[in-house]
Amino acid sequence: MSDSIRVTVWNEFRHEKASPEIAALYPDGIHGAIASFLGEQPGIETRTATLDEPEHGLTEEVLANTDVLIWWGHTAHGDVSDEIVDRIQHHVVLEGMGLICLHSAHFSKIFKRLMGTTCNLRWREIGEHERIWVVEQGHPIAAGLPAYFEVPQTEMYGERFDIPAPDTLVFVSWFQGGEVFRSGCCYNRGRGKVFYFRPGHETFPIFYQPEIQKVLSNAVRWAAPNGGPAPTFGNVQPLENVQ
Amino acid sequence: MSDSIRVTVWNEFRHEKASPEIAALYPDGIHGAIASFLGEQPGIETRTATLDEPEHGLTEEVLANTDVLIWWGHTAHGDVSDEIVDRIQHHVVLEGMGLICLHSAHFSKIFKRLMGTTCNLRWREIGEHERIWVVEQGHPIAAGLPAYFEVPQTEMYGERFDIPAPDTLVFVSWFQGGEVFRSGCCYNRGRGKVFYFRPGHETFPIFYQPEIQKVLSNAVRWAAPNGGPAPTFGNVQPLENVQ
Amino acid sequence: MSDSIRVTVWNEFRHEKASPEIAALYPDGIHGAIASFLGEQPGIETRTATLDEPEHGLTEEVLANTDVLIWWGHTAHGDVSDEIVDRIQHHVVLEGMGLICLHSAHFSKIFKRLMGTTCNLRWREIGEHERIWVVEQGHPIAAGLPAYFEVPQTEMYGERFDIPAPDTLVFVSWFQGGEVFRSGCCYNRGRGKVFYFRPGHETFPIFYQPEIQKVLSNAVRWAAPNGGPAPTFGNVQPLENVQ
Amino acid sequence: MSDSIRVTVWNEFRHEKASPEIAALYPDGIHGAIASFLGEQPGIETRTATLDEPEHGLTEEVLANTDVLIWWGHTAHGDVSDEIVDRIQHHVVLEGMGLICLHSAHFSKIFKRLMGTTCNLRWREIGEHERIWVVEQGHPIAAGLPAYFEVPQTEMYGERFDIPAPDTLVFVSWFQGGEVFRSGCCYNRGRGKVFYFRPGHETFPIFYQPEIQKVLSNAVRWAAPNGGPAPTFGNVQPLENVQ
Repeated sequence: MSDSIRVTVWNEFRHEKASPEIAALYPDGIHGAIASFLGEQPGIETRTATLDEPEHGLTEEVLANTDVLIWWGHTAHGDVSDEIVDRIQHHVVLEGMGLICLHSAHFSKIFKRLMGTTCNLRWREIGEHERIWVVEQGHPIAAGLPAYFEVPQTEMYGERFDIPAPDTLVFVSWFQGGEVFRSGCCYNRGRGKVFYFRPGHETFPIFYQPEIQKVLSNAVRWAAPNGGPAPTFGNVQPLENVQ
Repeated sequence: MSDSIRVTVWNEFRHEKASPEIAALYPDGIHGAIASFLGEQPGIETRTATLDEPEHGLTEEVLANTDVLIWWGHTAHGDVSDEIVDRIQHHVVLEGMGLICLHSAHFSKIFKRLMGTTCNLRWREIGEHERIWVVEQGHPIAAGLPAYFEVPQTEMYGERFDIPAPDTLVFVSWFQGGEVFRSGCCYNRGRGKVFYFRPGHETFPIFYQPEIQKVLSNAVRWAAPNGGPAPTFGNVQPLENVQ
Repeated sequence: MSDSIRVTVWNEFRHEKASPEIAALYPDGIHGAIASFLGEQPGIETRTATLDEPEHGLTEEVLANTDVLIWWGHTAHGDVSDEIVDRIQHHVVLEGMGLICLHSAHFSKIFKRLMGTTCNLRWREIGEHERIWVVEQGHPIAAGLPAYFEVPQTEMYGERFDIPAPDTLVFVSWFQGGEVFRSGCCYNRGRGKVFYFRPGHETFPIFYQPEIQKVLSNAVRWAAPNGGPAPTFGNVQPLENVQ
Repeated sequence: MSDSIRVTVWNEFRHEKASPEIAALYPDGIHGAIASFLGEQPGIETRTATLDEPEHGLTEEVLANTDVLIWWGHTAHGDVSDEIVDRIQHHVVLEGMGLICLHSAHFSKIFKRLMGTTCNLRWREIGEHERIWVVEQGHPIAAGLPAYFEVPQTEMYGERFDIPAPDTLVFVSWFQGGEVFRSGCCYNRGRGKVFYFRPGHETFPIFYQPEIQKVLSNAVRWAAPNGGPAPTFGNVQPLENVQ
């Protein structure tokens, strides 16, 4: 195992090609922006992968060498092949790979697969104000953050967010227009850890905010495999001759 | 056991004596108002108790005949005797009595005792608007409610609310001034169930709102003892001669 | 809505046809045995459905008139059509139908779909002794049970049970051969409630045990829809003109 | 802040003085044995404190310089002063100090204070066999462990363990005599983290077992403060002039 945490940042990478405004905001793609700030962190090394690469850039070999997979997708969830989704689920649940799903990845096949629910929500796109409150300050993902921070302009996501109750709820968002949202949700799924983080709308410079970057680098460290035991499934013998 | 759920509504009953405005709003006291609407529900019978009665109206005999205790207190938490708090804790944890703590009862001795944390929070009293979102629609306490409901004017309570993460989080509040709050929190504590519900500020007619009344009658039914087993503590013998 | 809880007991119904011993134990099928004792409970009405019926007996009309679906399957999970699994998931998550999965239904498509994990486990079939401990006595499913109860002979299931941590863990099993198991697991999934209950191996008369019958009738009452709000997903307008 | 995690190992230190057998097993006291193996870990520095020292060795200055406090107590819980318990609770909940409670510390004042329940249990002292199963393999405390490990001879603790359901349940124990136990329980309490770990009976060489030592060093790293935000309690102003 490498000493560094090996992060693969996956992006559907369609908006940046279709919209000059989004391309101007993220000239190297959202994946490029995320990989760039994470790669500057000590002990983290990054690579990227995108939808239109062969196997979406997520070959067995790539996943076998990924400690944490970050996922950004929005308009093309349906284009992700079920076979690759199976592969990712296997690596999370049975191999312990971490998975971080960002913003509209709430509707990605892999997130819905791991949650078992529709992952649907309310939304509104008027560039309103968001305040993100830390509700579990002792969690590793809250390290170095203030009691709350703000995203000046964003797309709103509101409850009911149709997810299983998180194993740990770290952030709750307030929106100007009257909604709340469970914005930072931690899950154990098999040997792996999953983190859903709400911010990240493509039309605003959200991934350049220092607090957002802090959350993501914390989340990478939290989600990295811990070296816990592989489970022993199947037919087994009884314990014999105990004292 | 009675066929009805026996509810004791406890109120510190100080504001209503000190403030003509509050007395006008709650001429029979907050306890009287709550006992009145609950007592009209089928299968619920109510009595009341207040701080200035002997033993705060919560004798061993009263608690032994209470299925669910509702608690409203604010300015006089320190006047509640530790011996009575011990008694309530015993009835919740070991006898299965339900406990519903309302609004400023977040700072009551019994709630802090059962939580183990400070139960502190942010607050503001400017009569602002609150929207209460249902985040766990399948929970019994959400029965018959809309996706959200509103309290037109209230005191604000905001995160970080210093509580253990609820076993089930049913409601999250949005406030006009920028805060969010975990407003409906369910806990198992020993054989008993505990529900914290945020609304209920004494200067507004909150306990006359139909949605608030619906929540409280749902909560009473949820918190009533279920007839589960008494635990068997202490020194025990091993299982012998299993097949 | 009917005043009674409408339960549909589903069974794969293959063992009873293939094995004279199992047929002797459950002459009306496992579904028949379960429907029989549940149907004797006040306020519960039952019907049955099996794999080899058209649409596995689970038409849209049947599910629309089912409050709680009970599932027993073992050797033929793969024969259940994905379309019916989609339909059941829809009724649980979006319509609030309860789902109770028994014993080897840990590996059913619908349970794996709702969990997002492999739901794999350790097992051993030597007819050993099981002790089922109540660890959350205040939960409705523990009503009327002793502190623990025993299954004299059973197939063993052992940890690691590859499930998400239950929202509430009600039972933990002890097995003679050295294993433990989270045997009673409650989940909220969307508007619906899901209960996994471990006992129920086809070669032993487990569904005739009074404690097992008590658990199932409690679980039916717990899992029945509560009449909570349907979520409002999609594009929404902001709150206007508060105060 | 020191670069190392600063651990204070607290022991009531009465058994070792009263019993030659226990003194032979733990010649430097249980605290000495624990501090010794932890102190050999990279990035951990230890000190010890005991009941009979002034302020039980836990002055404000000591706690202000403690990242994680480990607690072993059994026969003298009642001799711990309430003032010191208040101080520890303050450091956990408001300052983020980690707390690890071992074995009979289930009945310590500080653990009961933080739980809000009786923390009672079943027990038996016949030196029986214990198997400890990892039920959440991805948790940091499970790092480097096998799927299960054994304690050859121990005192039994059995359910119902009267605690709030853990935020994360990491271990479940099996005992030869027929009981199960939630043996590794993680809690967030305010800014701090609390871990209860069952093994550690004074008459057996349990703290010399490599798996036990591994659990404790993992737990120290998990429980150390993370640098999350201090909450901002009290009267606050509304958000103004959002976009």
